[in-house]
This record gives sequence, structure tokens and C-alpha cells, in this order.
Amino acid sequence: MTYRAPLNDMLLALNHGAGLKAAVEAGHYGDFDPDITTAVLEEAGKFASDVLAPLNQVGDRNGVKLADKKVTTAPGWPDAYKRWTEAGWNAVSGPEAHGGQGLPLAINAACTEIWSASNVAFGLCPLLTLSAIEALDAHGSDELKDIYLGKLISGQWTGTMQLTEPQAGSDVGALRTRAERAADGSYRITGSKIFITYGDHDMTDNIVHFVLARLPDAPAGTKGISLFLIPKFLVNADGSLGARNDIYASGIEHKLGMHASPTCTMTMGDDGGAIGYLIGEENAGMRCMFTMMNQARLGVGLEGVGVADRAYQQALAYAQDRKQGRAVGSKGTGSDPIIAHPDVKRMLMQMRVLTAASRSICYATAVALDVSVRAKDAGVRAEAAARGALLTPIAKAFSTDIGNEVAYLGVQIHGGMGFIEETGAAQHYRDARITAIYEGTNGIQAIDLVTRKLGANGGASVFKLLDELTEIVRRVEASNDPAFGTTGAKLRDALGALDRSSRWLLEKLGTAPNDALAGATPYLRLFGSALGGCMLANEALAARSENETEGARHVALARFFAETFAVQAPSLEKTVTDGADAVLAADAVLVA
Amino acid sequence: MTYRAPLNDMLLALNHGAGLKAAVEAGHYGDFDPDITTAVLEEAGKFASDVLAPLNQVGDRNGVKLADKKVTTAPGWPDAYKRWTEAGWNAVSGPEAHGGQGLPLAINAACTEIWSASNVAFGLCPLLTLSAIEALDAHGSDELKDIYLGKLISGQWTGTMQLTEPQAGSDVGALRTRAERAADGSYRITGSKIFITYGDHDMTDNIVHFVLARLPDAPAGTKGISLFLIPKFLVNADGSLGARNDIYASGIEHKLGMHASPTCTMTMGDDGGAIGYLIGEENAGMRCMFTMMNQARLGVGLEGVGVADRAYQQALAYAQDRKQGRAVGSKGTGSDPIIAHPDVKRMLMQMRVLTAASRSICYATAVALDVSVRAKDAGVRAEAAARGALLTPIAKAFSTDIGNEVAYLGVQIHGGMGFIEETGAAQHYRDARITAIYEGTNGIQAIDLVTRKLGANGGASVFKLLDELTEIVRRVEASNDPAFGTTGAKLRDALGALDRSSRWLLEKLGTAPNDALAGATPYLRLFGSALGGCMLANEALAARSENETEGARHVALARFFAETFAVQAPSLEKTVTDGADAVLAADAVLVA
Repeated sequence: MTYRAPLNDMLLALNHGAGLKAAVEAGHYGDFDPDITTAVLEEAGKFASDVLAPLNQVGDRNGVKLADKKVTTAPGWPDAYKRWTEAGWNAVSGPEAHGGQGLPLAINAACTEIWSASNVAFGLCPLLTLSAIEALDAHGSDELKDIYLGKLISGQWTGTMQLTEPQAGSDVGALRTRAERAADGSYRITGSKIFITYGDHDMTDNIVHFVLARLPDAPAGTKGISLFLIPKFLVNADGSLGARNDIYASGIEHKLGMHASPTCTMTMGDDGGAIGYLIGEENAGMRCMFTMMNQARLGVGLEGVGVADRAYQQALAYAQDRKQGRAVGSKGTGSDPIIAHPDVKRMLMQMRVLTAASRSICYATAVALDVSVRAKDAGVRAEAAARGALLTPIAKAFSTDIGNEVAYLGVQIHGGMGFIEETGAAQHYRDARITAIYEGTNGIQAIDLVTRKLGANGGASVFKLLDELTEIVRRVEASNDPAFGTTGAKLRDALGALDRSSRWLLEKLGTAPNDALAGATPYLRLFGSALGGCMLANEALAARSENETEGARHVALARFFAETFAVQAPSLEKTVTDGADAVLAADAVLVA
Repeated sequence: MTYRAPLNDMLLALNHGAGLKAAVEAGHYGDFDPDITTAVLEEAGKFASDVLAPLNQVGDRNGVKLADKKVTTAPGWPDAYKRWTEAGWNAVSGPEAHGGQGLPLAINAACTEIWSASNVAFGLCPLLTLSAIEALDAHGSDELKDIYLGKLISGQWTGTMQLTEPQAGSDVGALRTRAERAADGSYRITGSKIFITYGDHDMTDNIVHFVLARLPDAPAGTKGISLFLIPKFLVNADGSLGARNDIYASGIEHKLGMHASPTCTMTMGDDGGAIGYLIGEENAGMRCMFTMMNQARLGVGLEGVGVADRAYQQALAYAQDRKQGRAVGSKGTGSDPIIAHPDVKRMLMQMRVLTAASRSICYATAVALDVSVRAKDAGVRAEAAARGALLTPIAKAFSTDIGNEVAYLGVQIHGGMGFIEETGAAQHYRDARITAIYEGTNGIQAIDLVTRKLGANGGASVFKLLDELTEIVRRVEASNDPAFGTTGAKLRDALGALDRSSRWLLEKLGTAPNDALAGATPYLRLFGSALGGCMLANEALAARSENETEGARHVALARFFAETFAVQAPSLEKTVTDGADAVLAADAVLVA
């Protein structure tokens, strides 16, 4: 079956869960006309269903090939990429000064979910290009922007992010790739990088590599890293392509999933060094790279949402079609579709609400990032920037944990057929796995949340958000709608748990930082569960004020999330506040 | 790296968590000498490390091939299987009357964990043979036993279980394979089966298929199913092999994992019908098959334990070796091994304690099944049978959920390397996935637990177990050992949650069965978390009474489990008791 973008759910999440409507009404989106949102998402959904979704399994089966230092993608992929750029999809949120459409990140976030759902391995390529655009736009010289930015925005050329080396993964500061200053102001880069996504491919005639390297006189660690732009083909003054640069794919990985996305080992300097151009200042590369990484982290969170939704749609269709056994109280005569069995209903509801909660969290992150640059008022911008920074690690880690959990359930609903590759459910399960690892493992996101986001301002960003969420709970309770069941009570408990564990962590950050670090991952889960639960409740309140039937559906979804996921918050709080001793004893316990 | 059987942990789990020591001391194991346990497990561990573990990745990469209706296994597999039978490993728990060693199931359970950890796709073959032995021994005629039982016990021939057809998966009663009575008292079987594990292979010269089929005059549904023994090659009166029987592998599946284990479509009747022999009585096949399935369910649970332990060992070694970043408070000068980081410690502790808890639950199931046939006193036997029946679905579902969760964490600890197939972590993740599906999906196990095990006797088996677990908690609290942290309180809360949710489910089974079914899966998780937590605490109490250092390690493990997993029980209770309405609304919510 193909994929259909769930437009109603997406619009509800954007406007109400994520707060786009309120932000537009408050004037924070300038002259953006929200009426075009539906049209853009409809067109994106159509392109995804027609062009990208049919290539998803093709890409998985064919994978990519490396021969003569050239990577070939799966059949149909170069053509699909061409159609993608021609339709303007690469340029949705790019700056208008360089040919972009200048649409909000929030709209592009919804589009990114659509690309990821229809074909996550395809969508990964423009995701990285987008990060490259962001870094170049923020830190590049006007000359570099003139040459490269327009073509990256249109998608005529793609971008790569090159950080990782064998000894330098999460610890980027350990990298050794070397840059030497050349007489003409450019640099010569030598070394090699691993795990470079779309490091080479045959979908465009040039690739623009963004590579971290170290100057000979650079300080040790992250303070001695510089960012360079290295084109695959040098660009002549007239914009035409010149000589092949000294950067090549020398290997591709055999991976668990994402088979259609080439993961390359890149080698620079076999022929004297790749010619590179400095982005920003020397030794300030980490700051430039963080610009790319934050954008990319939200993008990866949206991959989690997208894969989850695809897995859900496939499982729902299977559960309506596949007949096995009689359900208790069934009025039919033969076997019932398995959706009639309560345990299957439970799994489908889990898939649906987990996907919805992570969608709303990701969209809310995008709205905050939009407001942080679009609002007129500096105070509003600063507050939105803090909100965006707070939500980014949750958007990345919570959503990708959920992508994996939902894909797991998708396989489970298919029973034995789920284990057979032809069914397609297993591909989602395999593809999803990397999203919890790349762009900073989910453990690193949790540490970022606790140390830099919660800890940054004495918890002010967290407590401000808690106030807003408490107001949502108050409105749920005030609705007196019995269909909400115990939603209000469960969410109130969850917010209490989030408040107490935040305070506990803040104290420990000062006195016993390893105790705080030991609780980082359960805290992030707690945060996502409480936040997601409130967002779904907020969407339900909005939906029931507009339409009775739709409202009832979303009240049931919010209730299910509260009773099955938000309800775990008090347990997670205990794990955070009581569990550090046992975690930190691990060395003595595990290594005999 | 290879696999080393964790003998100390296994012996502690067997003797104390699972209660083998007490059962032996109470005389329930007859003349079994427990002193041989260590020697058997040491030898099993050695065979696994030397012969089976090195073939695990070979099997994954090479897979199996079907050509000319014959299946070929991976290089080295037929030889390893030969060594396996020659060393007597197939016969460990087989009945002595037919050449088996007659050792307790508990010992064989520990061995099964070892085979599954070293090479789960290999271990699956004897697991099915064991089920076949059980069914034939319990229900077969003396004539059939004389011909087949000895060779199945030695492993000279392997067995298959053939239930599934395209329209008959979980709903076995829908099967259509047809059996006609022949003049000589045998039967002619025609039809086809899917998902038949080791349906054909080149490791032995004969295969004994156990096939469910329907006689022409059989009643509809499960009451009209008969079980037949169908040899691949007919057996002459002198025991030599005769003509090829009309049962062939006509297809093999391309699967997510378990690549080395052939999953076959079997076709019977292309040449007049396969010659089969009735096991038990006509139309009584489901009862015979249940004998096989219960045995197999425990075996699959042990696959979960085994894969989890393998993934854990590999992740621990990687975390000790891989250096990235500086840990807070590190006294080293360079990068620290990643095990120094609290978030990695947490993941490793999770892997370790989840594995240990599921191990103890599986071993306890085996001890109960042993006592149910070995004890002298009929009352003891009956009580043990009820305990074994109660624990079987938990052993299967909880352990295989955990196998998947632990393998997931194993990938995560490897970071980007975990997504690369060469690393091997991804294989465990892929292989584990089927264990939550086959031999009855984990949802079906949860339904079995609630309806047939909890519901069977007004909850008597559950409440008796709760009394025993409460006594363990009392002893934890009485120890006054501060190293237990909040273990006692967490376990007491968990048992309270188990007690209350059991009573709620019992009531609903009578008044609103779909409400009970909606809570089955969270109830099983709650049950496993409370039970596993108490078992680990019991092991810690035993360990600390014997040795201070070992005791301290196991106290820390028990504490971690209580504070991270048992602590979830009250939340799960709320999901069970409050969540049914939202689950049962799924149709209206999900299908617009």
C-alpha cells in the first residue's frame, strides 16, 4: 500500500498542539499567510504518494553501489530527485534572497514528515542539504554564498556534513583531518571521514561538502576545529563546473537499514589535498557546525515521526484486512478482522497516539524556531529561542525512540508476515533504528536537555513551559467532559512529576552532576510523555470546539495517551530521583 | 568476540531465583544429583563458545538456499550439527527409556539459553525436535515411538511442527490441509503449510514432520484437527530409510533475521499424498499440539534470554574498549571508555538486569514443570503444574519482549557502529524480533495469562505466588541493608499493583471480558516486572549470605531492577484498570 499524508491530523497538530495559529494571530509570523498551509501540504502529500513512496522498497532492495570511486543510487532515484527539485520542494524554507520560498520552518517540518514517511532514505538527502544551507547562510562569506547558496537551495547541488572519524564520533573534538593554508586564501584538506551520508551519489552533477578539519597550529579539542566548504567539482567564475576536487568516496557501509542512502567513507588528499574554503573564522568551526546540527536534529526527529506514521498506516490497513479468529461479542458469522481484537486495538492506538504526540512536539519546536527569528519583539524572539533550544533534544530523542517503538508494533501486528521482508513492515523497523543514533545519540540529547537546557537558566524555560501545560490541564478539567476519562488527573500527576524531577536535577547539577546525568534518559522520556500528553489534550479541546465527531476522536486519543503513557511519569520520576546510586555502581557490578 | 556462558549468574538463578535448590532439598527431584549441574553447564558453555558461536555470523551472512526442492544450510552447519548430536546435547532431557539422559527440564533450560546465546538460529532446530519428542512421547503409539523416538532424542533425525497455513495463523482451527484414511491404517495428507522452521535442511538424513490436518468428516474448527507424523523418508521395518515421502519444501522466506534457519513452505500431495501416521486419536490433534506448544513456548522465552545475554556481553566489551570524551570527575588524562559515562552505565545495567530477570522467570517455569512430573506427592505435582501453566506465558512473552529491548540497547551502545552489519549487534536485533511473534504472539500469551491462567481457578495460582513473593520482600526489608536502597518499598508497591490489577481483571472476566482483554498486555508486563524484581531480590539475599563481594553486586542489580522496572508496576496497574474504554473505542477513532 502507498502512503497518504494525514492532513487533518497534521493541521490540527500544527495549529493547536504546536501553537502556529496563536503565533500567527499574535503577529509573530509577519506577513505569512497561514491559508496556504493546506495547499502546500496537499501538494507535498501528492508528490510523496505518487513519486517517493513507490521508490521506498525499491531503494531498500537495490541499495547503492560503489565502483570506480562513484556511487550509483537505486533505479528511479536520480529521476525522482530531479522531479523533486523541479517541483520546488527543496526550496520550501530556503531564504528568498537566494531563490528560496521563505516559508516557515513549521511548514517545512510538516513537509519533512511527509518525505520521511513516504521514503525516509530519500528524504535524508535534502535534510542534510538544508543543514548545509543553514550553516552557509549564517556563517559563509558573501562570495561563497553567491556561488553555492542558490544551487543548494534549489537542490541542483546537494550538501553533506562531515564530522565523524573513526576515533571521533560523539567526541567531535578528537578529529584529525588536517587543513593547510594555501597562498590563494583557500585551504588544502587531507584526511578521511566515515559515516558520511550521501557522501557521493549520481543524483546531481555536483556535491558541496561541509568538512570539519584542524589547522596545523590549532588548539586541541573542539576549540581548534574549523569548517570548510569543499565542492566535489570546483566551480569556475562563470558558475560552470571545473576540475574534479580531491575528495572521493572510498567505501560504502553495509547497514541494517536506510539501504538506499549511501553512507560513505570519504578520502581527501590522495592527490595533494582537497581544495576547501573556510566558513566563518578559523577555529570557530564547532559553532558553525552546531547551527547545522540543531536544524538536523529536528529533521531527524521528524524522520521518527514519518517512519512511525508510515508503519502505522500499513499496520492499520493490515489489521482491517487480515481475518483471524472471532472477537468476544462479535456479531459477524466468520472470522473477524484482527482490529476487532482488543489487544490489536491497543497496539494500533499506541502507534497512533505515540506518532501524534511526537509530531506535535516536533512541530512545536519548529514554531519556536520560527518565532525566534520572525517575531518583531526581541523579548518574544529570545523567549522563543529558549523554547526552541529546550524542545530540540526532546523532539529528536523522544520522536526517534517512538519511531522505533511504533515500527516494532507495526511488525508485531503483522504477526509472522511482519518478519518476512516482502511485507515491508520490517523495512520501517530497520530504517528507524539509525534515527536514535545519528545527529547525536538519544543519550547525548538527554544529557543536553539536562545540562544545557534545563540547567542553562536555573530551569526557567522548563518552568515557563510547565505553567502553559498546567493551563491546558485546567481547561481539560473545566470541560467536564466524561469522555476525557482520567485524562486530567493523569496529566496533572505527570506535570507534578516533571516539576519535581526538574528541581531534583537542578539541585544535583550543582552538587553531584553524575547523579543528574544518570537520570537524564528517564527524565527526557518523562518530559516527552507529559508534554506530548498535554499537547494531544490541547488538540482534543480545539477539535471538540469545532466539530463533535472529530472532537470525540481526538478526546479518545488524548485519553489513551494519558492513561497509557503520561501515566508512566510518576514511575519515571522515581527512577530519576532514586536510581542514581545503582546506575553509578555499574562498573563494580558489571566488570568482575 | 565470542560468547561465554555466565555460569555464576545461571547457577544463582537456577538455585535461588528459580528455586531448584529448595525443590531438590524437598525431595521433589527424586534421585537427581544437583552436583552435576555445574559440570553440564560448563561443558555446554565450552561447546557453545567453540563450535556454535563462531558460526552465528556465518549463518546470518550465508543464509540458506533452496534448489531442486532441497534446502542447503550455511557452510559448517551440517558438521556442527553432527558434533552436537555426537556430544549428546540433543538428548539432555529426553526420556531415558529411549536413550535420553533424563536430566531435568531446568538443566535443559539453562542449556537452551546457552545454545540460543551462542547461535539462536542453530538452537532453534533442536528446540523444535524437543517439542516433537514431547508430543510423540505423550501421545504416540508404541510402534511409532519405537521407530522414531530414539532417533529424535539422539538428534539423528530432526522434527518439525506444522500448523500454519496462509489463512490459519493464530487461528489454527481455520486450517485446510486434508487427511484421507488409507486401507493400511495410515493416512494420505495433501495441502500446504507455511512458515515451517527447518522444514527441510541438509544436516540429517531424515526429518520427522508433525503436521496438523483435517479428516473429510471432521467437525469444523479446532475440534476437527488431527496430528500426523510424516517422515521425509519412509522407514523400513529394519530401521533403514525407504522411499522419499510426498512432502517437499517448495519455497523459503526472505526474513528480517534468523537467516540461517530455513523457513519453508511445505507442499504435500503432488504425487498422491504424503503418507502419515496418526498421533493420538482422530480429531484430538489440538491437545497433542498444545503439548508441543507449551514446551516450545518456554524454549522461545529462553531464546529471548539467550539473545539478550549475547547482546549484553558484546555491548559490555565494546563499552569497556571504545573511548570517547571525558567523564565528569574522570581521573584519567585522555578519553575515557564509554562505560565511564553514566548514560552508558544505565543502558548496560538495564541490559544486565532485564536479562537476569527473564532468565530467572524462565528457569522457574522449568522447575515448576519438572516438579509437576517428578514430585512424589500428587498435591505437590498439581500445584507445580498450575505454577508452570501460570508462568509459561510470562516466560515466553516477557523474556522475548526483553530480548528485543536488550538487543535494541546493544545497538545503541555501539553508536553508529551498531547500524553497520559487520559489527554483529544488528544481527541480534534482527534475530530477536521473531521471538515475540512465533509460538503464539506475545499478545496471545497475555490473553492466555489473563483468561486461562489467572481466570482458571479464581486467581488461586496468582495469589499463592503473590504470598511467596511478599515473603521475599519481607526478607529484603528485614535485612536492613542500606545497599538495597528503596528496593523493598518498590517491590511492595509492585506486588500491591499486581494484586489489585489481578482482582480487577478477575471481576471483569465475568462482567466485561473485553475490558479484561484490553488490559492483558500491560498486565503481563506488570506481572513480569514484579515477579522478576522479587526473584532478583531473592538471588541477592542468597548471594550476600554466601559471599560479600558477590552479594554486593547482586544487591545492586536487584536494586537497579526495582528502581527502574518494578517501579513501573503502579503505572501499569492504572493502564490496566483505567485504560479499557479508550482501547475499545479504537474502531471509531482509527477508522474514519
